Amino acid sequence: MVKYLAMRKQINIARGKPCKEQLDLSNPMFEDIDYSFLSEENVDVRNYGAIEGLKETRRLFADLLDVNIENVVIGDCSSLNLMFDCITRSYTHGVNGSTPWCKLKKVKWICPVPGYDRHFKILEHYDIEMISIPLNDDGPDMDIVEELVKDPAVKGIWCVPKYSNPTGIIYSDEVINRLARLRPAAPDFRIYYDNAYFVHDLYEEIKIPNILALAEQNGNPNLVYEFISTSKITFSGSGLSAFISSEHNVKEFLKFLAIQTIGYNKITQYLHSKYFKSVEDVRKHMQKHAEIIRPKFELVNKVLEEKLTGYASWSKPKGGYFVVLYVDNLAKEVVEECKNRGLVLTDAGCAHPYHKDPNNSLIRIAPTYIDIEELKEALDILVDVILSLKK
Amino acid sequence: MVKYLAMRKQINIARGKPCKEQLDLSNPMFEDIDYSFLSEENVDVRNYGAIEGLKETRRLFADLLDVNIENVVIGDCSSLNLMFDCITRSYTHGVNGSTPWCKLKKVKWICPVPGYDRHFKILEHYDIEMISIPLNDDGPDMDIVEELVKDPAVKGIWCVPKYSNPTGIIYSDEVINRLARLRPAAPDFRIYYDNAYFVHDLYEEIKIPNILALAEQNGNPNLVYEFISTSKITFSGSGLSAFISSEHNVKEFLKFLAIQTIGYNKITQYLHSKYFKSVEDVRKHMQKHAEIIRPKFELVNKVLEEKLTGYASWSKPKGGYFVVLYVDNLAKEVVEECKNRGLVLTDAGCAHPYHKDPNNSLIRIAPTYIDIEELKEALDILVDVILSLKK
Repeated sequence: MVKYLAMRKQINIARGKPCKEQLDLSNPMFEDIDYSFLSEENVDVRNYGAIEGLKETRRLFADLLDVNIENVVIGDCSSLNLMFDCITRSYTHGVNGSTPWCKLKKVKWICPVPGYDRHFKILEHYDIEMISIPLNDDGPDMDIVEELVKDPAVKGIWCVPKYSNPTGIIYSDEVINRLARLRPAAPDFRIYYDNAYFVHDLYEEIKIPNILALAEQNGNPNLVYEFISTSKITFSGSGLSAFISSEHNVKEFLKFLAIQTIGYNKITQYLHSKYFKSVEDVRKHMQKHAEIIRPKFELVNKVLEEKLTGYASWSKPKGGYFVVLYVDNLAKEVVEECKNRGLVLTDAGCAHPYHKDPNNSLIRIAPTYIDIEELKEALDILVDVILSLKK
Repeated sequence: MVKYLAMRKQINIARGKPCKEQLDLSNPMFEDIDYSFLSEENVDVRNYGAIEGLKETRRLFADLLDVNIENVVIGDCSSLNLMFDCITRSYTHGVNGSTPWCKLKKVKWICPVPGYDRHFKILEHYDIEMISIPLNDDGPDMDIVEELVKDPAVKGIWCVPKYSNPTGIIYSDEVINRLARLRPAAPDFRIYYDNAYFVHDLYEEIKIPNILALAEQNGNPNLVYEFISTSKITFSGSGLSAFISSEHNVKEFLKFLAIQTIGYNKITQYLHSKYFKSVEDVRKHMQKHAEIIRPKFELVNKVLEEKLTGYASWSKPKGGYFVVLYVDNLAKEVVEECKNRGLVLTDAGCAHPYHKDPNNSLIRIAPTYIDIEELKEALDILVDVILSLKK
C-alpha cells in the first residue's frame, strides 16, 4: 500500500521545534507585568546598560548549572549566535591573546558524529577542518579525542552532553571527567559545550557532572565555553541564551561584547526572571513540557517497534528533541521518497560534517512540533517508504 | 564661586539615553497583548522562523524610509551590532565575493569628525585605518571624500545623516546626492549610513533625500548599508533595529545570518508592530518624545548663551541627542575638573578617531536622561569650570 498525503498537504518533522501547546505554557510571562521595569538592582531594563545581563537572570541560570553569577552572561534568544560569536572572535582576534585563527594556515575541530548540522555549518563558514570522530553511547570516543588534541592545530570540540542532538545519548561521568582533564597542545583550544537540553528530561531528572567545576579542579579553568538557552523552555524564537564559563573567559567575552553591541534585550530577561523565580519553577515548567511531548516520543517508538523491527534500528531517548533512525544505505532514498509523498525530513547527511554520512543510514526525526494525529500519518508514510525500499 | 555636587552625588550627561518619562511612553505596548502571537502571515512569533523579521515590522520600517519590504531585515535592539556584524563579515568573508579584509595588507575608512565613538571603536577593533575628514555643517566634505575613494584600500565611510552624533548637523541634499553618486575604486566599498535619528525631530519634521533610491538611480544600487533602530523611539535596551539596503545586499546579509543565528526576537517585533500600525503612529509618538526633551535642549542653549557667550561656542541642534560645546584647548581639563566635582561627561576626544581631538576642544553634552533640575545643576558646574579655567 503506497501512502501519500492528500494533495498539497505537507508534514514537517525536520526541525526540533516546540508545538503551540508548549509555547502556550509560557504565555503567562506576559500577564500582570510589573510596569516599574526595574531589576532587583534598580536597573531600568528598558534603557541601556547591564550588558552582562540582569543579576536575577544570571543568578537563575547560575543556580540551574551550579556555577556563580560571575560565570554567566545572558544573551538574546539564540545560543547558536553566542557560539558563532565566540568562534568569530577566535577567528579575528584569537583566544586569550593567541594568534587569530584567520592568520593560521590550518585550524581543525573535533566533531563527534552524529552531531548538529548548525554546529558544522559555522565551522564550514570559517573553513575550519572538521575531524569526525565516533559519538558512542557514553559520549565522544575519548581515546581519540585525547590523541587528537596533541595537534596544536586542533582548536575545539563540539559537545552536546545531555540528550545529544540528534542521537539523544548522555555523556557518562567518565567522559565528562576526561573532557575536563584534557591537556590540549593548543592553549586556545576550547570545549564548546552546547548544553541545549540540560533540563529537558522526558522522565525523571538526570544530572550530569558540572564540567566547569571539574575543569577548574583539574587546572583547566578556562577550557570550557558552555552555552544554554530557553529556546525549548519558553519561546524558541524569542527567549534567552547564556554563555557560561570561567570568570576570566567571561571578562574576555564582555570586553569583545562591549565593542560589538550596546547590549541584549533586558525586557526579555526581566519577564523571564519574574516568571521563573527559582530553579524549582523551571523544573516544574519542564515537567509540563514533558507531559506534552512524551506521548509523541512514545508513539514513535511504538510504531517503529511494531513495523520496523528487523528492518531498522533507532534511538529511545529519555529527553531532548530527536529520535534517530538507522536504515543502512537507504537514508537519502528514504528522505527523497518521503518528500515526494509530502513528508519533510531533515536532509540525509545532516548529522555529519560536509553532509557525508558514510553509511547513508541516519534519519533524524523531530516529533515535537506536530500533533499526535499528524505524527501518526508521518510515521505511516515513513514506515511505508522504508518497507517498500527494503523489500 | 566653586560649585561641587553634594558628597557622593554624581550627575551623568555622558551618554545619549532617554529618560524614564520617555521610556514610559512605550509601556502600553505591554497592555492588552494579543495572545494569539500570530503575525499577519500567521507566523507563531514565539517559535523559530522568519529570520528576516515579521512582514508587518519590515513594512513599518520600509514605509518610514520609503523603501520596499524586501529592502529591510529586522534585528534585535542594537543597530550597532548590525553594523559590527557587517564589518565582521567583510573582514572574514569580504563583500559580495571580494577578498576578505583580513587577507588585505591595509584597509582604510573615511571618518567624518566629529563622529560617534562606538563607530570608531569597531574600526579600531579590526585595525582599520581611520582617515579623519571634516564634517561640515552640511555633511562630510565631499571634495575630500570623492578624492579618497579613488584609493582601493578605502572600503567605507561612516555617515549619520540626520542630527549627526554629536554635532547635530543634517546632511544637505547636495551632499546626499554626491554620496549616492560616488564611484569608489573598491567594489567592496560601502556607505555605512547610520540613520539613528531619522524621526527624532525636536521641532518640525525634517526630511532628507532617500539615499537608497538615489544610489540606485545613479547606478550604485549596492553602495549603501543603512541602519536604524527604535532605541530612542521605544526602549533603548530592548527595542528593534533594522538593516536596510538593496535586495541584493539583503540577500547576502540573510545568507550570512542563516549561519550565524536561529533568528532575532520576534515577540519584540510583534509587540512593536501591534503598537505602531503606521508611520503616522510613529510620528505622533515622536512628538511626545520631543515635548519631553525639547525643554532640556532649550535650557542648555539658554544657560550657555547667558553664561558662556564670548567664552565658548556650541551647537543648537533641531533634533538628535547631543549638544556639542567647543572650548578651545581646554576640553580635557574641563572634563577632568567636572569629574572631580561630580559631573560625568564623555571623555574628551570621544568624537575623534583614536581619541585625538587636535584642538582639544569638543565636549559632548547629552541632556536627555536627567531631569531639568539636575540638568540645571550640571550646567552650573560645567559653566563654572569653564569660566574658572578660561579666566
